Amino acid sequence: MTLEKPYVLFLGAAHDALAAKTAFGIADWRPEWCVGQLRLEGCQVTTGLDDVTLEEAIAKGAKTLVIGVVNPGGFLAPEWLPVLKDALAGGLNLASGMHEKLGAHEDLRHLAEQTGRKLHDVRHSTVRLTTGIGKKRGGKRILTVGTDCSVGKKYTALALAKAMEEAGLKADFCATGQTGIFIADRGIAIDAVGADFIAGAAEWLSPHHEDPEHYDIIEGQGSLFHPSFAGVSLGLLHGSQPDYFIVCHEPTRITMRNVDHGLPSMSDVIKVTKSLGKLTNPNIACLGLAINTSALEKDEAQLMLQQLARDYHLPATDPIRFGVSCFLEALKNQ
Amino acid sequence: MTLEKPYVLFLGAAHDALAAKTAFGIADWRPEWCVGQLRLEGCQVTTGLDDVTLEEAIAKGAKTLVIGVVNPGGFLAPEWLPVLKDALAGGLNLASGMHEKLGAHEDLRHLAEQTGRKLHDVRHSTVRLTTGIGKKRGGKRILTVGTDCSVGKKYTALALAKAMEEAGLKADFCATGQTGIFIADRGIAIDAVGADFIAGAAEWLSPHHEDPEHYDIIEGQGSLFHPSFAGVSLGLLHGSQPDYFIVCHEPTRITMRNVDHGLPSMSDVIKVTKSLGKLTNPNIACLGLAINTSALEKDEAQLMLQQLARDYHLPATDPIRFGVSCFLEALKNQ
Repeated sequence: MTLEKPYVLFLGAAHDALAAKTAFGIADWRPEWCVGQLRLEGCQVTTGLDDVTLEEAIAKGAKTLVIGVVNPGGFLAPEWLPVLKDALAGGLNLASGMHEKLGAHEDLRHLAEQTGRKLHDVRHSTVRLTTGIGKKRGGKRILTVGTDCSVGKKYTALALAKAMEEAGLKADFCATGQTGIFIADRGIAIDAVGADFIAGAAEWLSPHHEDPEHYDIIEGQGSLFHPSFAGVSLGLLHGSQPDYFIVCHEPTRITMRNVDHGLPSMSDVIKVTKSLGKLTNPNIACLGLAINTSALEKDEAQLMLQQLARDYHLPATDPIRFGVSCFLEALKNQ
Repeated sequence: MTLEKPYVLFLGAAHDALAAKTAFGIADWRPEWCVGQLRLEGCQVTTGLDDVTLEEAIAKGAKTLVIGVVNPGGFLAPEWLPVLKDALAGGLNLASGMHEKLGAHEDLRHLAEQTGRKLHDVRHSTVRLTTGIGKKRGGKRILTVGTDCSVGKKYTALALAKAMEEAGLKADFCATGQTGIFIADRGIAIDAVGADFIAGAAEWLSPHHEDPEHYDIIEGQGSLFHPSFAGVSLGLLHGSQPDYFIVCHEPTRITMRNVDHGLPSMSDVIKVTKSLGKLTNPNIACLGLAINTSALEKDEAQLMLQQLARDYHLPATDPIRFGVSCFLEALKNQ
């Protein structure tokens, strides 16, 4: 991974924040790498970064245009192509987290060759993977798991890694999805590896550390209860062999993303994660609950967290709103 | 899938039956499609088919050479290449179930282009997959699951599908691995699809059937308890949404394939398969136990099966040695 910085974040005509979650992730966690956001007519969300035209982005020194928007099929939308071509012609590299490769578009490939610019497809890892072996490795690992997709697993892991570093602990954030990879400048989009290699990819991502007090903080994916993606979540759990996991949850969600299934309870998630996770780490334990309370008033949110902490006998917080000091405290007391 | 028949099965210099399991599978289930086996010096196993040279195979009408041997890396071994080239030059197509594509070898690709022969990589599906949706489909499904890899899941599914057809029931064998695909002439190597698409691939493999008495018999993969491959097994379970599952087991196995982990008990497999499988089929039930008794004397084998049937209150058989009539009986009584 050698993405040239700074970036201009391309939001296309995104209608909601989830569609632009890659742009939001980079803007929230690496604003110092961004010269601004580039939006098409009809775009209904903002990352809070300055709006720039392509010319302005180049004038501000941007080196790479990052496609910060996704669509359900994971392909390059036709209305994006003129911007992408102009970006290459203007001397920018392109970076994408889509399923479809940038180089699969002949126009883009030719233009990149002509201009000597790079096409980065971060979703497609070039790491030569092996199947998992399930052997205990040195160092400690924390995995974020969820009651669903898109409930805050990445933000929780990032917030925890940052707070641990600030507290003088050794902690690495391990990215398992495209947004995380843009933020960490390293990682593997685990949902895009061959099915045989899910656990092996997770083992590669959080390798052996001699230092027993080194922590890998691993970004979770999907949910063991999501009928589309549970296999990914299980392979990631086995390969990560976490000592601790944090359950992430969005309390206003009624059904799981893109399917009709209801959400599992957090106690079911804890029970099943422990039961399946002990295959590669018999000492797996739940460190706490990370609740995305962004849809709640502050008072409501605090009341809910207090209630959950009492009910589960576990630290409960909204990592973004209230910080993660309760998780650090819990780690210290283990 | 349009593999031209008959086949000549290439065993390379395989040292054990597991390395040549694709050849064994085809020879056991589709002997009528084979003109013989082609072995290199040092090969220590036989499928029981006639040994032929390449010239003899061609003279007997072979249309396709099937690579019936695997190696741990899933790549084309250098010592195979002369045979593969001679086969193309002699007018045969090539078919492989390896990870590495035949066309990745420049020599083979050029030779195939020159001779107009086809290179089939059955492990790499060309089906355009979507992610699973977890909705209940019409028709019934039976999935074979296992305490480990390579314990008889494919043979059990094939034996059951065959016996059901012979009994006048509507049953389709659904192949999920390369050997099964060669036998069924249809299927998807589920361990080779992108991790996001495991459940979606299983949904494609066992689609909706209007007839409520139509059975899809789905070949299982790996084990929910295997640290390398459990993610594949879980995605396959969710996508298959089986009404019934059969637990396959090899009673002399001490550790799971290629790892240090011990085997789970069959009761643990039943408990966890039901518990996780109910996400996409709340009525999931265990139909019986399929024990690979090939390492036991006949008396011992029968005694063990009787004991297991009593302990588990489930039909128990060795499908290859003693048939599957007990499973058909159990289905009738549901």
